[in-house]
Amino acid sequence: MARCDDSEPEVIEQHPEEDTEDKPAPVSPSDPEGPSGSQSSHRLLAYSDALISIIATVMILPVAHTPVESYEVLSLQVLLSTKIGVYLMTFLIVSMAWAAHSRLFQVVVRIDDYLALFNLVCMMLITFLPYTFSLMAAFPEHVLGILLFCGCVMVIGLVQTVMVLYAFSRPHLLHPQLQDRPDLSHYQHHILRVILRVPLMCLLASVTAAVCFQLSYVLLAIVIFLPYISAARCGSGAGSWAGGGVPEELLLYSFLPHEPLSKERLEAFSDGVYAIVATLLILDICEDNVPDPSLVSQRFNGSLVLALRSYGPEYLAYFGSFATVGLLWFVHHSLFLHVTKVTRLMGLLNTFSLAFVGGLPLAYQLTHEFPTHSQNELEAIQISCIIIFFAGLFQLCIWVVALHHQQECLLPRVRYGGSEHLLMLAKLSLYPCVALGTFLLTCVLSQFSAPIFHLMELTVPLAFLLLRLLLRLLLALLRLLLLQLPSSEEGSTLLYTAVDS
Amino acid sequence: MARCDDSEPEVIEQHPEEDTEDKPAPVSPSDPEGPSGSQSSHRLLAYSDALISIIATVMILPVAHTPVESYEVLSLQVLLSTKIGVYLMTFLIVSMAWAAHSRLFQVVVRIDDYLALFNLVCMMLITFLPYTFSLMAAFPEHVLGILLFCGCVMVIGLVQTVMVLYAFSRPHLLHPQLQDRPDLSHYQHHILRVILRVPLMCLLASVTAAVCFQLSYVLLAIVIFLPYISAARCGSGAGSWAGGGVPEELLLYSFLPHEPLSKERLEAFSDGVYAIVATLLILDICEDNVPDPSLVSQRFNGSLVLALRSYGPEYLAYFGSFATVGLLWFVHHSLFLHVTKVTRLMGLLNTFSLAFVGGLPLAYQLTHEFPTHSQNELEAIQISCIIIFFAGLFQLCIWVVALHHQQECLLPRVRYGGSEHLLMLAKLSLYPCVALGTFLLTCVLSQFSAPIFHLMELTVPLAFLLLRLLLRLLLALLRLLLLQLPSSEEGSTLLYTAVDS
Repeated sequence: MARCDDSEPEVIEQHPEEDTEDKPAPVSPSDPEGPSGSQSSHRLLAYSDALISIIATVMILPVAHTPVESYEVLSLQVLLSTKIGVYLMTFLIVSMAWAAHSRLFQVVVRIDDYLALFNLVCMMLITFLPYTFSLMAAFPEHVLGILLFCGCVMVIGLVQTVMVLYAFSRPHLLHPQLQDRPDLSHYQHHILRVILRVPLMCLLASVTAAVCFQLSYVLLAIVIFLPYISAARCGSGAGSWAGGGVPEELLLYSFLPHEPLSKERLEAFSDGVYAIVATLLILDICEDNVPDPSLVSQRFNGSLVLALRSYGPEYLAYFGSFATVGLLWFVHHSLFLHVTKVTRLMGLLNTFSLAFVGGLPLAYQLTHEFPTHSQNELEAIQISCIIIFFAGLFQLCIWVVALHHQQECLLPRVRYGGSEHLLMLAKLSLYPCVALGTFLLTCVLSQFSAPIFHLMELTVPLAFLLLRLLLRLLLALLRLLLLQLPSSEEGSTLLYTAVDS
Repeated sequence: MARCDDSEPEVIEQHPEEDTEDKPAPVSPSDPEGPSGSQSSHRLLAYSDALISIIATVMILPVAHTPVESYEVLSLQVLLSTKIGVYLMTFLIVSMAWAAHSRLFQVVVRIDDYLALFNLVCMMLITFLPYTFSLMAAFPEHVLGILLFCGCVMVIGLVQTVMVLYAFSRPHLLHPQLQDRPDLSHYQHHILRVILRVPLMCLLASVTAAVCFQLSYVLLAIVIFLPYISAARCGSGAGSWAGGGVPEELLLYSFLPHEPLSKERLEAFSDGVYAIVATLLILDICEDNVPDPSLVSQRFNGSLVLALRSYGPEYLAYFGSFATVGLLWFVHHSLFLHVTKVTRLMGLLNTFSLAFVGGLPLAYQLTHEFPTHSQNELEAIQISCIIIFFAGLFQLCIWVVALHHQQECLLPRVRYGGSEHLLMLAKLSLYPCVALGTFLLTCVLSQFSAPIFHLMELTVPLAFLLLRLLLRLLLALLRLLLLQLPSSEEGSTLLYTAVDS
């Protein structure tokens, strides 16, 4: 039976359109079974993606479960912003670990039992990263927090080193393109250097922590953020460097120059994050909101309806956040259906978008928790709008970046002038526009903020259902307006035919 | 870029080895884009699997978070067994919903925007099923619980009906084999009848609930369990019916006679369950076990090490459960790597295995929570052993069933006499044997139950690493023993060569 990684051979190649049939490939990565019990890595990666996406969003739970009532306003704001900061940082750290894992398995495309077991060890340590980081954040002046975090990162690095050494000693596990390269050992050294840089920095940080812990935080910040900065630079400059030689510095954080991310893994990771975020609130509801039978008979005279009615806000928050997260997933899905290559900058923007999506359930919960017409409610609604706005905006940015290199990155039908270009633009800009509009409306009509917000929650799913129709109406209107000016008739015809197919 | 569902065209076919190139296929399901904006359904299914696997395990949370200290022994046992019962039932219900979803998308192999949005509605309702069921379980005599549960199921059925009607009105969304069938409308009626049976039964149950709620529970039990019984019968009888005509009753719960489950989706669902179960405890640790700075300075004289030491049992429980769940995933992965076709009985056994895996973190948590040498600790350890035993045993059963139809279901190298037959047997029987052994040992040496259990936790990962070596040693021993009896020499040579390759 054909296995499911046909896209992998193209991952490392610079020209996906190139004909690859003339190259001899000893074992295709898509065979379920190769020599000496080597296996397709597809399921291992799917399981790893599921684990990492759950762990990336784990620190939103302490934020969501902060008892809002038991603090004063000022201390609550400090507490919440600390927790949100920890959430965002752990999300970035785990995403970095995911990117490193993804990079490793672009080189090692087949696995065997030992690699699978080593990978489980690696996963166990990655799932522990958020906890060690939150310890570090809670006790910034204790050396122990830094030591634990650095220790975790160092052991992950060592396990990955062992995996690389093991895989290079059995070349049939490597990417087919690499197996024939004469400079295999040189390449192995390069990869080991890239992998070991992070643990070495952490070792340095944990040593300096004994002397001056501020310095070790600077070192850790470099470890955490440099890959992101490098990704952004790499992505923004991809066009200009495509022709000539590759600068040495680009190779610092990647195994191959201009290596794209694995689209399949990016989708799997995003799916995991969207799924866990969409169900965050129902997890709480299932746990806390099944009323106690004795309580119902005491307080509600045995009326289950009354008891459940008191949970109304929780249900509303759940349905609202599920619908919003689901529709953001739908937009993401529609976009990546037409993406053929994912640059590192696109991956970075995707991470930012996901980080905001993770905050959505919390914001919705707050929205429905406060008494109506209170200042708190207004603020919660505005925060929800801001989160939706940024989550949607970063998705839009992915598309803008992809359009910049549309020949490599996008399918023809969504490129400029393609038959679905405008539809895609409408899908991607619907949420940012609506969120911005709602935000501005609630600023002006603060009395009606809750009805406005609920109206938005109701109309957006409908808008997605009727998007093609709405778009056609809008374009017909535009055409009518433009027809008044005969000079631009040609342009409007183009617009009209664009959505007509 | 090639998409990722090459295995799907084979899902419905009865003979995967058959050459399919002579059949005209208007649109291959693996194209990312077809006519009129139809899309590959791969990612939609991956997202749905992730959502459903999270929801299937959700009701273990109330079990895990029951405050053990605040109840007396007897009432605690009653409370826990009720909650565990609710967990098992919701797991089966959600698995049934997953199977129905999987069946639907074996017929509808391509999607468009509308189907994706309908599917999100369907998912939202499925994620609400566990809550309505637990309401029903908490208030068995209230009509409202039954009504909510039945209402949920009915709306899911209606949405699926709409999806079927929509897909059959656009035949390019259907499986290529169906598109050319002359009796398409007959087939559509058959599918609608299968789908609508469940909502109709629920309607009947909610009507009878007003008269006699016991009767409505009987009806619901039939709705929930009949598919499982039918699956078991279908699986056990698959051999005898393969030749002749297909009995009408088999078609009651399936769209196609002897339809196998989609292996890809079964793997995705299992991966999701294993991933969420493996991380259940770290979610709690991240939320509850970051000590409060003020508490540390008060109670532990500012010593973070002492504060963290008090959480020792939680860490141990996490590492233990992560390793066990991870290794059970590893066994599952190894098994399904060699499975070519999944019968419905195998899917049923897989569901049972997953249901036990879901209870593991809880058992491990209890194991490390009680004081050493207490009766509670012994019981918790024995329960852990029983859960591991059954989780492993059902995995072994999957293999036994697959061996029964090994020509269709397994790759040659794990069939009887295949080069990895014994290795697979060793992998699958390691956990059941070790768990049984530990259980028996703790019965005899109840004083040393905790050390025995920890020893097991440590040795099993090592045993998996050294499994090939251990197996070869064992066989060498066997060979030595058997060589004493010259008549069986041939058999022992066979054994020896079996693992030597």
